[in-house]
Amino acid sequence: MDFGSDNFWGASDQVLAALAAANERSASPYGSDVVTKRVEQKFSEIFEHDVRVFLVATGTAANALSLAGCVPPWGMTVCHSEAHINTDECGAPEFFTHGAKLATIPGVAGKMSASAIESFVSGLSDGVYQMPAKAVSISQLTEAGTLYSLEEIKAISAVCRKRDLPLHMDGARFANALVSLGCTAAEMTWKSGVDILSFGGSKNGCFAAEAIVVFKKDLAPDMDYLRKRAGQTLSKGRFLAAQFEGYFADDLWLKNAIHANAMASLMKQGLDSISGVRLPWAVQGNQLFPIISKKAFAVLGEAGATCFDWHSASLPEGEKVGADEVMVRLVTSFATKPEDVERFIGILKTSN
Amino acid sequence: MDFGSDNFWGASDQVLAALAAANERSASPYGSDVVTKRVEQKFSEIFEHDVRVFLVATGTAANALSLAGCVPPWGMTVCHSEAHINTDECGAPEFFTHGAKLATIPGVAGKMSASAIESFVSGLSDGVYQMPAKAVSISQLTEAGTLYSLEEIKAISAVCRKRDLPLHMDGARFANALVSLGCTAAEMTWKSGVDILSFGGSKNGCFAAEAIVVFKKDLAPDMDYLRKRAGQTLSKGRFLAAQFEGYFADDLWLKNAIHANAMASLMKQGLDSISGVRLPWAVQGNQLFPIISKKAFAVLGEAGATCFDWHSASLPEGEKVGADEVMVRLVTSFATKPEDVERFIGILKTSN
Amino acid sequence: MDFGSDNFWGASDQVLAALAAANERSASPYGSDVVTKRVEQKFSEIFEHDVRVFLVATGTAANALSLAGCVPPWGMTVCHSEAHINTDECGAPEFFTHGAKLATIPGVAGKMSASAIESFVSGLSDGVYQMPAKAVSISQLTEAGTLYSLEEIKAISAVCRKRDLPLHMDGARFANALVSLGCTAAEMTWKSGVDILSFGGSKNGCFAAEAIVVFKKDLAPDMDYLRKRAGQTLSKGRFLAAQFEGYFADDLWLKNAIHANAMASLMKQGLDSISGVRLPWAVQGNQLFPIISKKAFAVLGEAGATCFDWHSASLPEGEKVGADEVMVRLVTSFATKPEDVERFIGILKTSN
Amino acid sequence: MDFGSDNFWGASDQVLAALAAANERSASPYGSDVVTKRVEQKFSEIFEHDVRVFLVATGTAANALSLAGCVPPWGMTVCHSEAHINTDECGAPEFFTHGAKLATIPGVAGKMSASAIESFVSGLSDGVYQMPAKAVSISQLTEAGTLYSLEEIKAISAVCRKRDLPLHMDGARFANALVSLGCTAAEMTWKSGVDILSFGGSKNGCFAAEAIVVFKKDLAPDMDYLRKRAGQTLSKGRFLAAQFEGYFADDLWLKNAIHANAMASLMKQGLDSISGVRLPWAVQGNQLFPIISKKAFAVLGEAGATCFDWHSASLPEGEKVGADEVMVRLVTSFATKPEDVERFIGILKTSN
Repeated sequence: MDFGSDNFWGASDQVLAALAAANERSASPYGSDVVTKRVEQKFSEIFEHDVRVFLVATGTAANALSLAGCVPPWGMTVCHSEAHINTDECGAPEFFTHGAKLATIPGVAGKMSASAIESFVSGLSDGVYQMPAKAVSISQLTEAGTLYSLEEIKAISAVCRKRDLPLHMDGARFANALVSLGCTAAEMTWKSGVDILSFGGSKNGCFAAEAIVVFKKDLAPDMDYLRKRAGQTLSKGRFLAAQFEGYFADDLWLKNAIHANAMASLMKQGLDSISGVRLPWAVQGNQLFPIISKKAFAVLGEAGATCFDWHSASLPEGEKVGADEVMVRLVTSFATKPEDVERFIGILKTSN
Repeated sequence: MDFGSDNFWGASDQVLAALAAANERSASPYGSDVVTKRVEQKFSEIFEHDVRVFLVATGTAANALSLAGCVPPWGMTVCHSEAHINTDECGAPEFFTHGAKLATIPGVAGKMSASAIESFVSGLSDGVYQMPAKAVSISQLTEAGTLYSLEEIKAISAVCRKRDLPLHMDGARFANALVSLGCTAAEMTWKSGVDILSFGGSKNGCFAAEAIVVFKKDLAPDMDYLRKRAGQTLSKGRFLAAQFEGYFADDLWLKNAIHANAMASLMKQGLDSISGVRLPWAVQGNQLFPIISKKAFAVLGEAGATCFDWHSASLPEGEKVGADEVMVRLVTSFATKPEDVERFIGILKTSN
Repeated sequence: MDFGSDNFWGASDQVLAALAAANERSASPYGSDVVTKRVEQKFSEIFEHDVRVFLVATGTAANALSLAGCVPPWGMTVCHSEAHINTDECGAPEFFTHGAKLATIPGVAGKMSASAIESFVSGLSDGVYQMPAKAVSISQLTEAGTLYSLEEIKAISAVCRKRDLPLHMDGARFANALVSLGCTAAEMTWKSGVDILSFGGSKNGCFAAEAIVVFKKDLAPDMDYLRKRAGQTLSKGRFLAAQFEGYFADDLWLKNAIHANAMASLMKQGLDSISGVRLPWAVQGNQLFPIISKKAFAVLGEAGATCFDWHSASLPEGEKVGADEVMVRLVTSFATKPEDVERFIGILKTSN
Repeated sequence: MDFGSDNFWGASDQVLAALAAANERSASPYGSDVVTKRVEQKFSEIFEHDVRVFLVATGTAANALSLAGCVPPWGMTVCHSEAHINTDECGAPEFFTHGAKLATIPGVAGKMSASAIESFVSGLSDGVYQMPAKAVSISQLTEAGTLYSLEEIKAISAVCRKRDLPLHMDGARFANALVSLGCTAAEMTWKSGVDILSFGGSKNGCFAAEAIVVFKKDLAPDMDYLRKRAGQTLSKGRFLAAQFEGYFADDLWLKNAIHANAMASLMKQGLDSISGVRLPWAVQGNQLFPIISKKAFAVLGEAGATCFDWHSASLPEGEKVGADEVMVRLVTSFATKPEDVERFIGILKTSN
């Protein structure tokens, strides 16, 4: 009953096999090899766009480098106050951007509205005293496991266009969002106005493989230097690429995400059936945040379930975690088994 | 005939197998797993010392984080003018240290003498105008493929002790140096006064695995934060550790290095037998820098040999690369085959 | 009717005279001169404490260097969301600290409560994901012209002590606060738990002279290097010191502040007499934020009054700036004339 | 006998008077005042070019901000190994540029040759491993008190043009160089290919006033933000401008420099007359570096002369400071008196 996070699980067998295959011969280093070239091309196919791709080893690096490519040290990136870049990366965005500020906006269920962004940006003073807004970053899925609809992304990108702000998407759980929305990768990104993307692989079947995908021509022209300088240009670069090759083959990435989301749906169904358990917002990917009793949380822990209590200022108005309650985060993955979900629900049902 | 670099080759089978083994179950993330704990313990055994270990994905990150742990932004690290940190990492040391300077010292065959360091440091002015020296970094093997003897390391560390300067060792080719010196890992490091080490795995049989090893108590106390903030704390940290587990098992790492060095010796033997070919300095690991004719270099290229022409200001006095000559770098690895060396020598013999 | 800011005015004659006096002879540079030594000693007398003093040319530099002396690049400084360091210094704190974050807390009238700070800090997660709190910064006077009482400062410093967080005070308007509280400089700072202070001179009678005053032993040990490296160590350092010498002589600094505050009181008295004009919070120094009609604001502007409309999220619950209203900031200074205040009030009275 | 440096002296009376005059009224802050506007216009007149001007308080800030406007964090600035930016600013260039490297080139008498720069830059490898050259910085006067001729500047700028490298001039002693060359300010800068200039005032009659002068359109477009963020945008900005107003009036700046240089010539004449005293390179401004006996140095010190012993790797081939000798730096200024020079020479003559 391992619902702690989607990074508790390893890599899909197919990804491991691709790594092994890439290991059979020598290759030129630092991403100048043929596997990397093939994968870069594959990204352009997936996104139906001539994209520039930069492979890195961690999501933190993908996000921080993306922002470093967009924002000057004296600028601000507008993001949700609970965005991963703001709360979980130990200041990597500030480090990589040399001190650019994350300007945070609250919002229910981990989401910012276009109007809240517009209102914030238009409220900034001119002159050189207040740092100017220089980018917007959204997370898809959000930290609350929710989704921006294509319409919402477009509304946000319209604000960005008006203000000439690049729009970054933190896609650590890009595949989960994509299969949930049921649209194309192009639609969820550049066709809706996204300029640069952190494309996650590690949480959905890779060992450690993330990609910075640049859609906008001329954006982040120095990314090659930024990546090398950040120690993110792997010596044997093909092993990043090989993971993606395995990840994309036969649509493994989509299948993995479909499974993870299905397990979340199964979990939701179970949670809905338990009186007293509340889900504060929609389940739209592979994360759920039920509010359960402290007692049940303890019982689940003793039974071997792994999941963490969670704090969020994103609760809808009127919703509150009671004194005897706890909000927990449940994350399903490509490796989650239905029987584990059912066992979890069974225990919760009797203990809540 | 692939002598381009030791990062042209993939991982040893045993490393791949360890990765596959670590993939069979779920584990807690970010290096809090049992594989990582085991590997950290293994480092303490290898070094016969209670070390702190921080696994990262690239040598550039290992070096830059090591320096960031030692040097304030307004300090200098003394290093050889051809040190990898100075010429090949795109300013990563400056980035991670927030602008600390690399103060470079020349020296034959990629090596600094203790007296040159002492002379440089003692020549610095007091006060806040000139940046003060705050660390010394040596490479073992050097970029010229040469070695510091234990006596030389001790002489340098004596200068460091006197001035209270941490001594960093860039051990991207640590294993090659170790088996060449024929001493223990402890003797080549903390017993000779090394305080912090970049321990390389990627060039000698890993996919992408390097370790920062801290010997000196209280040095770099914030490394955990520095690493996370640099996007080098892998989400599925055990996959870094698993590589090292495979690397250390049955002394694979030493065997790999012994083979690589033996291939270099074989190459040297061949080079010595060819009239007109000169090796400007000793071959002490897995790198050779013969000066050959431009004609032979072209013939070798056409025959499919991969190796690069090289420029160095480290030539001994009196040595010069002639107008019709070129200095090339040859790197052997754990995967180099004797027949490739022999073929290379054969072609060179007839074409030089 | 110049109420735009206290930096619209020049220097007091006495400060100019001190500058001229210091100009009469040669002196050793970079703050090694006798005038600087005398002024450093004077600071220790004023604060009844053996302080370390670093003179700089701007308040932004004083604040940013103070924080750089306290906070590592991966730490957070807790401050009010409308603090000058957060909204008016173009990211100087982030620049000087190499990316440390300002964690902002809201609060009525520009003030944070000790309990809000405690609540924020205790809500941070452990581990290396969320940046840890590493300092607290309060402004005295606040950006809203209000004061922390000694009890409030002590309550905040108690939180700081418990968490081992240095407490910084932005004293750009230190003198105005001091004479308003009617306590000693020692009481308003280290006796109440302040560890490091930006002591302002420029807004109260100097040309360009600010001081970083360090109360806590061992805090910010490298400030000399930080200041030099930031281009804030003036070549002819004595001219910063000379300004302070003139500023402190015969308690000019206190007299200037008493006058500025008295002019604010006079202004407040006038504002209170005008129906429809509201002051959203107490006037405790030399700044007032009346909410007046847009019409009156326009009339005042035409009559030659200089003052700016102001936006604040610090309004008390229930208070609101109406659609036909505007909140303006009025700042009085050592040079403000009572007749200007009276003229301003007269016009407002007839136009509001 | 104060020859320690030109920053031992205060400001010219005329500069003080201008400061006093600017103090007589209120003005808008942060450089938005009329005095600043006038001075900015005056710079355009002096340079016969539509320049952008940014006033700051120190030469270190002027240099570091200039470089920050030209060079990305992953680029290198080529400069002489004894350039002030490299040896005397405590890493300010690295700080302001976020880690860009100073690539140093040796050269006799503090000067780099165009061919040495070309050779260095053309020897850099492509790719993202070695940091690319992104600017060149020359000092006029150099740290050795020597001059680049217009031809030499043009030769260097030709290398810069070819490589698309902005050319920065550190003009801390701009006026001394200008009157020595006898050309126009335009000729010594943009007409010879200089793109951005640190224009010094503090060493030649101001209190603390330096200017960044940008000649090249589109270079350093964000300087306003950079300056503010660096704490160099003075609150009462007009007091920087007022110093320049006094400095420029009636060509005071040129007259001051002419006097300082004349005093250096007088000194040179005296030194030439003393047997055993050698000047290792030409005296071209207001600095001299005679090699004298240690005994004479001691006698001069006892007689009250202020001057410092100096170390330089810029000595011409064959020149050497003997064991009983010392090279001293003598700096004359606008305030140096002929009788002090004569007294100094007199003592040296009898004691050397």
